[in-house]
Amino acid sequence: MKVLVVNCGSSSIKYQLVNMLDESVLAKGLVERIGLEGAVLTHQPEGKNKVIINADITNHSIGIKLVIEALTAAEHGVIDSMKEIAAVGHRVVHGGEKFADSVLITPAVMTVLEECIEMAPLHNPPNIMGINACAEIMPGIPQVAVFDTAFHQTMPKYAFLYALPYEAYEKYGIRRYGFHGTSHKYVSQQAAELMGEHVTNLRIITCHLGNGASIAAIKHGKCIDTSMGFTPLEGLVMGTRSGGIDPAIIPFLMKKENMTTDQVDNYLNKKSGVLGVSGVSSDFRDIEDAANSGNERSELALEMFAYRVRKFIGSYVAAMGGVDAIVFTAGLGENSISMRDKISNGLEYLGTRIDPDKNNVRGKAQEISVEGAKVKIFVIPTNEELVIARDTRAICSNLA
Amino acid sequence: MKVLVVNCGSSSIKYQLVNMLDESVLAKGLVERIGLEGAVLTHQPEGKNKVIINADITNHSIGIKLVIEALTAAEHGVIDSMKEIAAVGHRVVHGGEKFADSVLITPAVMTVLEECIEMAPLHNPPNIMGINACAEIMPGIPQVAVFDTAFHQTMPKYAFLYALPYEAYEKYGIRRYGFHGTSHKYVSQQAAELMGEHVTNLRIITCHLGNGASIAAIKHGKCIDTSMGFTPLEGLVMGTRSGGIDPAIIPFLMKKENMTTDQVDNYLNKKSGVLGVSGVSSDFRDIEDAANSGNERSELALEMFAYRVRKFIGSYVAAMGGVDAIVFTAGLGENSISMRDKISNGLEYLGTRIDPDKNNVRGKAQEISVEGAKVKIFVIPTNEELVIARDTRAICSNLA
Repeated sequence: MKVLVVNCGSSSIKYQLVNMLDESVLAKGLVERIGLEGAVLTHQPEGKNKVIINADITNHSIGIKLVIEALTAAEHGVIDSMKEIAAVGHRVVHGGEKFADSVLITPAVMTVLEECIEMAPLHNPPNIMGINACAEIMPGIPQVAVFDTAFHQTMPKYAFLYALPYEAYEKYGIRRYGFHGTSHKYVSQQAAELMGEHVTNLRIITCHLGNGASIAAIKHGKCIDTSMGFTPLEGLVMGTRSGGIDPAIIPFLMKKENMTTDQVDNYLNKKSGVLGVSGVSSDFRDIEDAANSGNERSELALEMFAYRVRKFIGSYVAAMGGVDAIVFTAGLGENSISMRDKISNGLEYLGTRIDPDKNNVRGKAQEISVEGAKVKIFVIPTNEELVIARDTRAICSNLA
Repeated sequence: MKVLVVNCGSSSIKYQLVNMLDESVLAKGLVERIGLEGAVLTHQPEGKNKVIINADITNHSIGIKLVIEALTAAEHGVIDSMKEIAAVGHRVVHGGEKFADSVLITPAVMTVLEECIEMAPLHNPPNIMGINACAEIMPGIPQVAVFDTAFHQTMPKYAFLYALPYEAYEKYGIRRYGFHGTSHKYVSQQAAELMGEHVTNLRIITCHLGNGASIAAIKHGKCIDTSMGFTPLEGLVMGTRSGGIDPAIIPFLMKKENMTTDQVDNYLNKKSGVLGVSGVSSDFRDIEDAANSGNERSELALEMFAYRVRKFIGSYVAAMGGVDAIVFTAGLGENSISMRDKISNGLEYLGTRIDPDKNNVRGKAQEISVEGAKVKIFVIPTNEELVIARDTRAICSNLA
């Protein structure tokens, strides 16, 4: 059984074709600049040369059509016909409160996805376009939606509600949803496997640290809290996002700078974070370089980032009444040796410490805590595409 | 030496006359409804009957004049003449970044207090009015300002800065200041005394839980982090304040409800918190009653409050790399047996637990953790007036 995994942005389509027999990736690629000048498909068949296809890609349907052509092409294709694709799995950002798990896409599901646009105006519309495009190009092939929010739906109400007038929740669905759920779920399960334990016996804190960053408290296999909230702005300091701030700063700044609601939203989402503090870049590699060259605001940005992660780890230990493992994943979590070290420095009270030799690793799943540590620390590369493919197979295997 | 302690609100003056020989309160009282119909002074001389004086109190100067008259009156007075007042100590809410300690009031100090109005528009103006009124009524008597923010000025930059564009800090002083500093300082020192240790050897987390609520991490006698921020809105869930939320909720709500910046400020400060969640009251006693009668949203509000405090405790343990004592103070912290129990439930991983018998206490300083607990838990009634009186004496004793 082969599953096509699709992740649509507003002007992009990321895809992977996965052979579920051995979970190998047959091909992957990226369509970029949809609807813009210079649209391009970069297609990478496994074990063959990369192919770059320039075309006039005015919408997601044309994009998906090109992807199917690339997958089935004589020279650089990996399957003979579209019929070999048993199912399509889509990453969908926001599933609201309706979906606590992945789901077979039906007209009723589409209606809910449309309803969730309000809460994810930048993400759900392209996700929906991708689903519609696949339905058009590949009629009859089952499609599955895998939500960034689903894994977090197990949070108790006292953890997901904000202390706002209750009507804000009833009327607009304002509550903590959390994101990166697919990643938190995957790496927590991988950690359990590495520990030779079942995830339902463990309390795990997963740190998904990339340009967007979130952290989750996973008690006995279920998410009980996470740092992103109603939107992906809350919580940790990120590349360009502020994370948590005093809410009173917003009306203060809007008045002072005569900002509109859209401008302040842009300010907090695009101009803040380590970019805003350092003034150098939103890319942690640039900031680490600048800090190493003595740039004080870059060093400050890194300290702020690490301190916030460390505090969240502490708060989730309290939320779970203890912890068995801490996992670092995503771009920064998998690759920044110094950031992992900075974050973990001060967690000795939990009975854990990083082993500098073991920590000298990038992008490889392994324990990095010292021998005999009470709380294990891991680096685990995330693989959201694989989770999407697995969920898609599981759901479609049950189809009559 | 006798010190008059003054705490001015926009339409009120709270005062205490303290005899510094034995730190006894000679008299205390409250002027209410300044500038309004029905203004009144309630004066309580120690060991005598309460006196209620109705008068036309159109401004703070007239209020202070009445206070001095009450203190020196033949029948209910406690001193013979105003000259017995050696100094006046004022509570001032916001001292910005200029004051890391209490200070003798000079014209230069007044200029800074004026500059801080922008950051504390509701609090600093009445504080300034009170100082001016005392200068007018009691010329030549030294006055001292004791700041809510001062104790928190030892926070490191990575803890007090927000991940906003750095210019927000440079241009508007947007950073974490923290409040309730006088209370956090006092109860942390009291805890050290009860432990028979010097505060510089201890890591203490102080929970000031009242209608306004904040928590502080005090490492070796110095505040290194606190939950209130640029304003007293941030951090914990409070009586009517939201505490921390996803910042993106604000522009979302402003758009949906067509709110102005002032309206959203009011919404977050006055209509949120446990009042907003429960829909019952901002008073925890009412909410506890309602919860006991089966009101679900009241129970939810209490759970949310306790959960947030517990998470902050956990995060500050991580920030300090461990903890030696946790202190509960202020209205709720000193008096709510069930809330202290709820908060501490789940902190056993720190090596501590509340002893239900010892916890059966209200408004009395004592340890409430089980015998032999690694981390001590205390109830300690706060006494901000005493700290103001002590600081005032210390500063004025040094005057030539």
